[in-house]
Amino acid sequence: MRVADYIAKFLVREGVRDIFVLTGYGAMYLNDAITLQPELKYYCARNEAAAPMMAEAYARVKKSLGAVCLTSGPGSTNAIPGLAEAWVDSAPILIFSGQVQRSHTTYAAGLPGLRTFGTAEINIVPIVRTLTKYAEMVMEAESIRYHLEKAVYLATHGRPGPVWLDIPMDIQSAEIDENNLRPFIAPEESFSASDLEAGVEKTAKLLLSSKRPLLLGGHGIRLGSAIEEFRALSEKLQIPFILSRFAQDIIPYSHPLNMGQAGIKGVRYCGAVMKSADVVLSLGCRMAVQLAGHRFDAFAPDAKIVMVDIEEDELKKPGVPLHLAVHADVKKFLHKLLKYLPSASSAVGEKKWLEDCAQLKKDHPMVTADFKRNPIDLYYFMSRLDALSGSEHLFTTDAGSNYYAGGQVYHFEKGQREITSGTFAAMGLSIPLAIGAAIAAKDSQILAVTGDGSLELNIQELKTISYYKLNIKLFVINNGGYLSMRNWQDGFFEGRRIGSDDETGAESLNLKKVAEAFDLKYECIARCEAIDDQLKKIMKEKGPLFVEVICDNRQKIIEPIKDFSSQKASSACK
Amino acid sequence: MRVADYIAKFLVREGVRDIFVLTGYGAMYLNDAITLQPELKYYCARNEAAAPMMAEAYARVKKSLGAVCLTSGPGSTNAIPGLAEAWVDSAPILIFSGQVQRSHTTYAAGLPGLRTFGTAEINIVPIVRTLTKYAEMVMEAESIRYHLEKAVYLATHGRPGPVWLDIPMDIQSAEIDENNLRPFIAPEESFSASDLEAGVEKTAKLLLSSKRPLLLGGHGIRLGSAIEEFRALSEKLQIPFILSRFAQDIIPYSHPLNMGQAGIKGVRYCGAVMKSADVVLSLGCRMAVQLAGHRFDAFAPDAKIVMVDIEEDELKKPGVPLHLAVHADVKKFLHKLLKYLPSASSAVGEKKWLEDCAQLKKDHPMVTADFKRNPIDLYYFMSRLDALSGSEHLFTTDAGSNYYAGGQVYHFEKGQREITSGTFAAMGLSIPLAIGAAIAAKDSQILAVTGDGSLELNIQELKTISYYKLNIKLFVINNGGYLSMRNWQDGFFEGRRIGSDDETGAESLNLKKVAEAFDLKYECIARCEAIDDQLKKIMKEKGPLFVEVICDNRQKIIEPIKDFSSQKASSACK
Repeated sequence: MRVADYIAKFLVREGVRDIFVLTGYGAMYLNDAITLQPELKYYCARNEAAAPMMAEAYARVKKSLGAVCLTSGPGSTNAIPGLAEAWVDSAPILIFSGQVQRSHTTYAAGLPGLRTFGTAEINIVPIVRTLTKYAEMVMEAESIRYHLEKAVYLATHGRPGPVWLDIPMDIQSAEIDENNLRPFIAPEESFSASDLEAGVEKTAKLLLSSKRPLLLGGHGIRLGSAIEEFRALSEKLQIPFILSRFAQDIIPYSHPLNMGQAGIKGVRYCGAVMKSADVVLSLGCRMAVQLAGHRFDAFAPDAKIVMVDIEEDELKKPGVPLHLAVHADVKKFLHKLLKYLPSASSAVGEKKWLEDCAQLKKDHPMVTADFKRNPIDLYYFMSRLDALSGSEHLFTTDAGSNYYAGGQVYHFEKGQREITSGTFAAMGLSIPLAIGAAIAAKDSQILAVTGDGSLELNIQELKTISYYKLNIKLFVINNGGYLSMRNWQDGFFEGRRIGSDDETGAESLNLKKVAEAFDLKYECIARCEAIDDQLKKIMKEKGPLFVEVICDNRQKIIEPIKDFSSQKASSACK
Repeated sequence: MRVADYIAKFLVREGVRDIFVLTGYGAMYLNDAITLQPELKYYCARNEAAAPMMAEAYARVKKSLGAVCLTSGPGSTNAIPGLAEAWVDSAPILIFSGQVQRSHTTYAAGLPGLRTFGTAEINIVPIVRTLTKYAEMVMEAESIRYHLEKAVYLATHGRPGPVWLDIPMDIQSAEIDENNLRPFIAPEESFSASDLEAGVEKTAKLLLSSKRPLLLGGHGIRLGSAIEEFRALSEKLQIPFILSRFAQDIIPYSHPLNMGQAGIKGVRYCGAVMKSADVVLSLGCRMAVQLAGHRFDAFAPDAKIVMVDIEEDELKKPGVPLHLAVHADVKKFLHKLLKYLPSASSAVGEKKWLEDCAQLKKDHPMVTADFKRNPIDLYYFMSRLDALSGSEHLFTTDAGSNYYAGGQVYHFEKGQREITSGTFAAMGLSIPLAIGAAIAAKDSQILAVTGDGSLELNIQELKTISYYKLNIKLFVINNGGYLSMRNWQDGFFEGRRIGSDDETGAESLNLKKVAEAFDLKYECIARCEAIDDQLKKIMKEKGPLFVEVICDNRQKIIEPIKDFSSQKASSACK
């Protein structure tokens, strides 16, 4: 059997049923092996940049491995934007790149002055090294099983992340005996059991003696399959919880203990909550600048902060000052903590704390009646999208205003998922993420939101949506392009604009014509009164649709907190 | 003065008049400094990937530095496809990326487990290290002059190439005294003068005693400003020359000593020429696989090969077997060689050799009368584009069939330039290269050719063409998409296609609608009889135009040589 066929079979054995590709000469045997594997369906991206983004969404929705196959040289370097996303968003994807024959690689030549050697050849491994958990060029056909098993193990264990295997052409086509290949032996787990015990004990004591405890849930809760444990802890001790942008969809907003999104673009009252807490237990959340603000010591200034994370370096970084750092798998930590707590234990903390939290939540809704106005307020539109959606829906959002607004108004009452560029909030992600999600969840409908600026960065993939007739409703917010950039240019630089409006290089496209060019049916939402009826009709139909939503081009983003240090604790919370 | 303003002023002093940007928060002070510098005009790309490609074309056309300014995180990783092009194509471009404040960088944290730290932050330097001649994060405001001067020196000296400076936000805005900054002191040249003398002497002896000498000119001839010296050597000794894909535009094809393009997709008779030569002097040409074929020893099997290159590792690589390797600047080498030759020296080699070469060239034209047919033959179309063009024209080509055909039929009789993805022959380059060329040469008209497959990879930049009303005539070859891929899939894999036609994921776009979506006037060339009239009219008008050219979708590429080892020397050459 050819190595290429072994790879395709291996993927099927690992449960991969779909692979994202852009074909090319350097990956010819890999491509051919895919066509020969009936259980492996391929989807063609129109630019390699988007393929890992699709695979990321696929992996996150299916909670399994995503796979990508690309060609050598530019086929590989084109994919780095998507790879970087998967890296920072901790998505387990496996990227294969084709490569020229070994004897024509700069890797084998070992001469640093060679920039390229074979046809469309580049040494991709050092370029992607710091963006992957494992990146290797396969130099021996017989090592293929080892590399594949190691790559999948690393992609999916610990903090997940992308891995990359570069396969030279003569390796792709080499014949191997599949029964005679070296396996990979997974290492023992490296966490310290006694540290975990100690961490659990200290945390329990802190919580049980706290007056205003707060749980902070991050992406690690989902990655670590710890949603049920997180909810159980919160409910057992009646501790309110607040969530990162990434973790918002783990529990519906209406849950009485759910305080919504933390962060500098979080819910209106999150500053007051953080300011008032006396113990914060952060679980699978790295407390990034986007969440904690620029002055880390002002984030929860009166709280003892306990941080539990699977990535040791996240605990060591010069970030939020920690009372206790626990290096652990969050599910194991929660499991042990729940067992450790007295079985009869009930609500901890002051009763007033819970009442204050409930009052804050009630008094400070994100969207109020006056948001229903014309020109359409983005918050209002997105809140209606959320309200009218059902359990069959998946959301994607893009960079800029819709990213912030989505985080602030989506409530996930029906258990919907959101797949977004959680870490970078990068432009151009919504379309490829929607594609990957649609392929992973064929019975779902994707409610994808993008901006007229972000749209352009992966506009070529509109054709992927129409070609595969994916059940994606793409809402393109027309707000005159690059709204967020205009906002900071006006704020910081006295209105000296650059690349952010019609006059400075960022004139928007005619969206109706764009839809036509990419074979997508088009609809326009232009008045707030029509939103509900139009959305209901749109959601009823299957298949792709491009919806232009004409919004206020002076939309302001609600920034309850510029910096936590300037936020006064609400009197309601005192 | 802010560091950002110092940078903008520095660029102007270096002769940079245009900079390619995509604005973003992380580069806000850099962007603002650009708006404040009246001599520096900015052009907005629609995806960062295309910005370095534009800068590459700009640098190559102007023979000066190209400049790019991007934002942090995804803004930086998005640019890597273009960076990789500039790297392998040896283009001197300087890329600035914005970065978060120093204290929020993973670089400063020094913890390998941190994937990202500040807002939209990534440690870009290690990612781009192997794709640049210099890549640094600027950690001290006072070091800015040193870094800028060193970066420009390295970008433009020796073998040119891209450099990258990552500028944290607090450095961008830091105040400096511009008179109190440390300069960069350029190092002494490292070439050995005695090696050069010896190389010149040996080369001269070889040439003077040869029977069938041949010069092989590469991209280094232009990069090293040695076109005149190359021509002088050829004419003085009456030695025929053959050119790499990259060097074809240095001397018109009609020059009696010009044998056209070498390589596996070269002119029809290049195998015979290579087979017959007894001395080959390769100048600024790396003799890549694309040129020399897969069996290096079969390239010029009976010739003593002398290779002159500025990059020492190119001489050491396991490539074409060398009789003599000379590590030198090609201009200095030629200058010395010309001086060394007896002043009265005239034609070297056998008279019959020159006659054979002339006969081969006459007998084997690339395009013959029968190419004028319908559906349009791509070779015929591109040969007419070449024939009707004038000195005001610049060509760009894209990957695949039009890349090969352009290399085989363009004759550059009026001294036209071609800017193409010379090394990778990557998809999606023609549009951004055309944009950069149009901005560099405002009085030129760009004749840009792309395929309906390649078009999609940077389709967003069509709006850049229309927005800036650039004088670009974009010819989009409609041949059913991904023609080259279909050809190899049919050839190697019994027609098992993947991602290369309508049924396998690569359905083409409706090109007329695409032109409309991106605000470009549209025209269609569909019949061979109409080509001349239509082209004449098209070339007369200024401004952008999108021209669909409906070509044969079963077009075969002329491959005179699959492998030089299988090529018999033409009897005409014996």
